[in-house]
Amino acid sequence: MKKAKIDSRNIKLTIEYDGTNYCGWQIQKHKATIQSEILKAIKKITGENVILRGASRTDSGVHSLGQVANFKTTSRIPIEKIPSALNAHLPSDITIKNAEESSDDFDAQFSAKLKTYRYVILNRKTPCALMRNTSYLVKTPLNIKNIISAAQYLVGKKDFRAFATKNKNKKNTIRYIKSISIKKKNDIITFDIEGNGFLYNMVRTIVGTLLLCGLGKLKPQDVKKILESRDRKNAGQTLPAKGLCLINIKYN
Amino acid sequence: MKKAKIDSRNIKLTIEYDGTNYCGWQIQKHKATIQSEILKAIKKITGENVILRGASRTDSGVHSLGQVANFKTTSRIPIEKIPSALNAHLPSDITIKNAEESSDDFDAQFSAKLKTYRYVILNRKTPCALMRNTSYLVKTPLNIKNIISAAQYLVGKKDFRAFATKNKNKKNTIRYIKSISIKKKNDIITFDIEGNGFLYNMVRTIVGTLLLCGLGKLKPQDVKKILESRDRKNAGQTLPAKGLCLINIKYN
Repeated sequence: MKKAKIDSRNIKLTIEYDGTNYCGWQIQKHKATIQSEILKAIKKITGENVILRGASRTDSGVHSLGQVANFKTTSRIPIEKIPSALNAHLPSDITIKNAEESSDDFDAQFSAKLKTYRYVILNRKTPCALMRNTSYLVKTPLNIKNIISAAQYLVGKKDFRAFATKNKNKKNTIRYIKSISIKKKNDIITFDIEGNGFLYNMVRTIVGTLLLCGLGKLKPQDVKKILESRDRKNAGQTLPAKGLCLINIKYN
Repeated sequence: MKKAKIDSRNIKLTIEYDGTNYCGWQIQKHKATIQSEILKAIKKITGENVILRGASRTDSGVHSLGQVANFKTTSRIPIEKIPSALNAHLPSDITIKNAEESSDDFDAQFSAKLKTYRYVILNRKTPCALMRNTSYLVKTPLNIKNIISAAQYLVGKKDFRAFATKNKNKKNTIRYIKSISIKKKNDIITFDIEGNGFLYNMVRTIVGTLLLCGLGKLKPQDVKKILESRDRKNAGQTLPAKGLCLINIKYN
């Protein structure tokens, strides 16, 4: 008797999360992580222990409106039912926004072409209860013009070594930043940074450095010098994780 | 010897909160409320048991970006230090945005001329982790044109009895709605309703009724009939508290 062939499907998920109560994306022993929660939910609906490939390993406290991950399964559950089935088994601070079938060779991490991260600064004297976990408070008024003109020096294909927390395994520190869009609405400043990839803590360190320009402690053109120095100690501080959100991943 | 005269100051606070973990504004025995938390913080910084008058008694789960309250104190603490002093004693989901000296006869509740509430509907198939406590999910696509044309029937000085949860003590059910502004951005629909006052559950019931128009279960002109019926059972459901936020109070 011939066995029915069970095709493996490659499911692409778009995932949102409030990272406040998690130790980041990546699975770790005895720690609550986004990846481990989703793996548990997949196990519940498919019965399978799958491999879940995430586009970005977001850190503890970082949020997402656009994380992408994929997994292979032989489960026949209809694609349009996957989000609600997984959401039923996930805590409310992790939600599956969308699921789609993708080609067998799709890999959420390696197929990614561009990623966009958003950093949110609340620029006023007092904290805001409703934004306490999703923004970083800066009490001194910032010069937004200086911030915008400083940011231009970081757009393009550059060596971002000065803006990365050291990582012995990471020899290639050249990355391409396609755009940095900075907007101020009332007392909220958003930094949307799109690039082909980011070094460890790179977005948070870039914004920390632009912040020094906004405070008048650095001139916009100093950012060019910092970049060229390739020395982390010249850049600004790595801002807190809670202001950061992964908002989009682009694929071909 | 003549005693130094201690003038009483009347302090006006602007207060933001994430109402998720509170049983509303008003102080209640053995329950966590916004008012009780702020009273405790005032006691810590002034040593006084004051009366704190709030402009609106928001319900359990309702948020604020613009609640106003006032209290009288003989404390000499400089006005510009009050927000940070109180915030230091408040949980992070309640924040004092601003404090100012006001005239002796200012009363946050009775001096209020116009109040604006915002209700947020997330109109898409799946819940959103980051908006789980601040929006109400509607999975069926809504007809925004119908919602907007239905809303016009509610603007003006009208008897809103049909949109209020019954309250024996409230005989006058006439209120003035100055404007209803409805905006859709991506899958988020915001309803900003400004009026001179609101009956119990009125905003949540108005939005619940407009929702029926968006779903095609009511025609826009049915809202006029519901209003004129003065009968609560003709209106839509009272939507959940978590989508509601008090955003502004206007005084003369």
